Amino acid sequence: MAEVSVEELRGALGSPDDGELATLVSRLHPADLADLLEQLDEEDRVRVFRLLPAAVASETLTELPGDERGEILERVDPGQVREIFTQLAADDAADILGELDRSEAAQILEGMAPEDSREVAALLAYDEESAGGVMTPQVVAVRETAAAHEAIEEIRRQGQDVGEVMTVFVVDDERRLTGSLPLSRLIVAPEHARVADVMERDLVSVRPDTDQEEVARIIARYNLVVLPVTDAFGHLLGQVTVDDVIDILEAEATEDLFKIGGVDQAEEAHAGALQIVRSRLPWLAVTLLTSFGGAAVVAAFRGTIERLSVITIFMPVVAAMAGNSAIQSVTVTVRRLALAGAGAGGAWRHVRREVAGGVLIGFVIAGVLGAVAALWQGSLELGLVVAAAMWVSISLGVLWGALFPILLDRVGVDPAVASSVFLTTLTDMVSFLLVLGLAAALLRTLA
Amino acid sequence: MAEVSVEELRGALGSPDDGELATLVSRLHPADLADLLEQLDEEDRVRVFRLLPAAVASETLTELPGDERGEILERVDPGQVREIFTQLAADDAADILGELDRSEAAQILEGMAPEDSREVAALLAYDEESAGGVMTPQVVAVRETAAAHEAIEEIRRQGQDVGEVMTVFVVDDERRLTGSLPLSRLIVAPEHARVADVMERDLVSVRPDTDQEEVARIIARYNLVVLPVTDAFGHLLGQVTVDDVIDILEAEATEDLFKIGGVDQAEEAHAGALQIVRSRLPWLAVTLLTSFGGAAVVAAFRGTIERLSVITIFMPVVAAMAGNSAIQSVTVTVRRLALAGAGAGGAWRHVRREVAGGVLIGFVIAGVLGAVAALWQGSLELGLVVAAAMWVSISLGVLWGALFPILLDRVGVDPAVASSVFLTTLTDMVSFLLVLGLAAALLRTLA
Repeated sequence: MAEVSVEELRGALGSPDDGELATLVSRLHPADLADLLEQLDEEDRVRVFRLLPAAVASETLTELPGDERGEILERVDPGQVREIFTQLAADDAADILGELDRSEAAQILEGMAPEDSREVAALLAYDEESAGGVMTPQVVAVRETAAAHEAIEEIRRQGQDVGEVMTVFVVDDERRLTGSLPLSRLIVAPEHARVADVMERDLVSVRPDTDQEEVARIIARYNLVVLPVTDAFGHLLGQVTVDDVIDILEAEATEDLFKIGGVDQAEEAHAGALQIVRSRLPWLAVTLLTSFGGAAVVAAFRGTIERLSVITIFMPVVAAMAGNSAIQSVTVTVRRLALAGAGAGGAWRHVRREVAGGVLIGFVIAGVLGAVAALWQGSLELGLVVAAAMWVSISLGVLWGALFPILLDRVGVDPAVASSVFLTTLTDMVSFLLVLGLAAALLRTLA
Repeated sequence: MAEVSVEELRGALGSPDDGELATLVSRLHPADLADLLEQLDEEDRVRVFRLLPAAVASETLTELPGDERGEILERVDPGQVREIFTQLAADDAADILGELDRSEAAQILEGMAPEDSREVAALLAYDEESAGGVMTPQVVAVRETAAAHEAIEEIRRQGQDVGEVMTVFVVDDERRLTGSLPLSRLIVAPEHARVADVMERDLVSVRPDTDQEEVARIIARYNLVVLPVTDAFGHLLGQVTVDDVIDILEAEATEDLFKIGGVDQAEEAHAGALQIVRSRLPWLAVTLLTSFGGAAVVAAFRGTIERLSVITIFMPVVAAMAGNSAIQSVTVTVRRLALAGAGAGGAWRHVRREVAGGVLIGFVIAGVLGAVAALWQGSLELGLVVAAAMWVSISLGVLWGALFPILLDRVGVDPAVASSVFLTTLTDMVSFLLVLGLAAALLRTLA
């Protein structure tokens, strides 16, 4: 697996002869080649792509981002497209076709061998983010009643379509899944042993409509390499492999992080300025609206501010600390929900623990801030007002940070929507209300 | 794989006879059993654990959190501990021993069979977060020069120690790694074919000191099921399997998310209130200090606030929007760095794109906010001051959000330390400075 730099590749592109280019490219792993292609302009990308043997081209295609795939498939000739789709695994083919125009996808499907196109069309019918959408129908399965040497013959035959065989499934006469057959057991089994005697039963499987997050969680939880997908009658439909799951887990982690950070999860790695505006402005517009809540509170207390302007020094500190405590709590809660999955118990215990922690943290921070305010401005009353507002603000911020994601999860909304950018405008408003309300009460007492 | 509820388990614990309990527990997968055990108190947990056969006990132990493992190992009798460690994979055994007191770990090591304890002790010498720390030395390897039927015999012999064989490695006479032997190929090879003729060469491998994040990235990138670990001379030391990688990726994603959210990544799933205080108060203490920067700015402009108290209405809105834009930018940047890995090019291009997006977003938000301020308070000048402060604050916030993580990464500090809770106190300060500074200039102009 040689390393080739983008400069070397550009050098080879400088020569009109494709020979050097082809040699250079042949030394690369498809994943590395895809990375280099992303750094070229469209013209060069297509030129390199045309030189690739179909097997390499198809693997490289799966590693490229969606928009670049469409671009390439439009520009290489139909013969190469057909060859590439013959090489692609059915699930990858369905993913790629799902991104193209209907007419273009239909044209490619027509060019495929009938049984391949039937398989791919069936996959296209499943939700992209379900087990059906991420599984491949290409599995190796043998019958329970077969003898070891027949199973080996069967694996040899079926394995040619499947590439590297990771797991052999065992089915009954109706193709209902009954177990799996580790190759390491088969290899050491006597030639005439029955599959039923060496197989493993007690297999975890999922339905095609199971959400991909749940699929990933099951594979991670039980340390599986493949997870079979069956219909309601137990018929084997396909398998999800662990490498697909890694992509799902990374995508989900990115999605959660981005949502908490207030970024549309569809923002791509090389997003231009306009795409950045599109993916972030909507969240900011919402928080602009909610932040007017805080502005309205301040406006209502203009009189208090004019009579006690010193309070404006501590107002933003209280708001910042309450916001930060809420961010911490929402971060922990969203991640727990993501890792534990739906239906995880102990949600209320989690909220109780968070609030207990928040009240303690609030006490410490309020004590420090109140002491600073009292000493700096030489006013015990001011210190008490600031400390009381701080304590309550932090406690409430932590309560919401823990509660909102759980409530959203209960009503079936993605908990990460309780994003920190939204939550902090709420804690701002409440902090201002507490600081200014207490300050107004103080003024009334002193008057 | 039956589902057993914690209530059923508690019911069985109510009976003094252990028979029912043992039957119930025997129906569970170790991962599910570990979940249930976490919900019991220590007494019951140990009671259930004592009933487990060594094979189940060892698998369940690996699924439990660190502190609970230590607790259990202290309380079950030394005979059971010895049996459990005989069953554990060497990498899991090393992980668990690494968490215990030195004296306790040494005692357990002494109780193990000499070759097992040698293996585990060797693993303990590697950094926990390196390839050496996560690999298992238990691999199946055959010689290039062996015939297919000899290889099968060898796999049968070695496979007994290894559990399910996922990949067979091929080594030369000095045990230097030369390739791998997919079982699916071996199974269909003629009995007298040489391993060298059916093996795959061109294998990716890592050194034991490779960071676990890099290991995870390589496995994810090349869709591997196992990654061999070799020393500088190419001798095969062990393998990292894809299920370990899933745990690493999840832990890394949690770590990044928590750091951005200002939570110590060591906070455990069932942290009590005191642990919450310990893991979050330090971050809050730092942000309390930095938020005094904002307070100092407001204090310096007390005169301006007294003469133009209306400005305090818009001050928090400007600060909130600048903070939110910075959170968005830092979120995207940290995730890009995590997924792309060290040495990824295009960092400056990323900063340029972020700033271009930030300037555009700032323009829109500043326009809206300025118009609201001007119309609400009937003052064009006020609208201009607020809009100008907003535009510059957002642009700067986005710049820092993109720049700080990259700079931290360059100097070898985890970029996620540029957490949003820290960044927002900085954007607060700058926003106040801009709003109040421009307001003061406006007052001077009007005077």
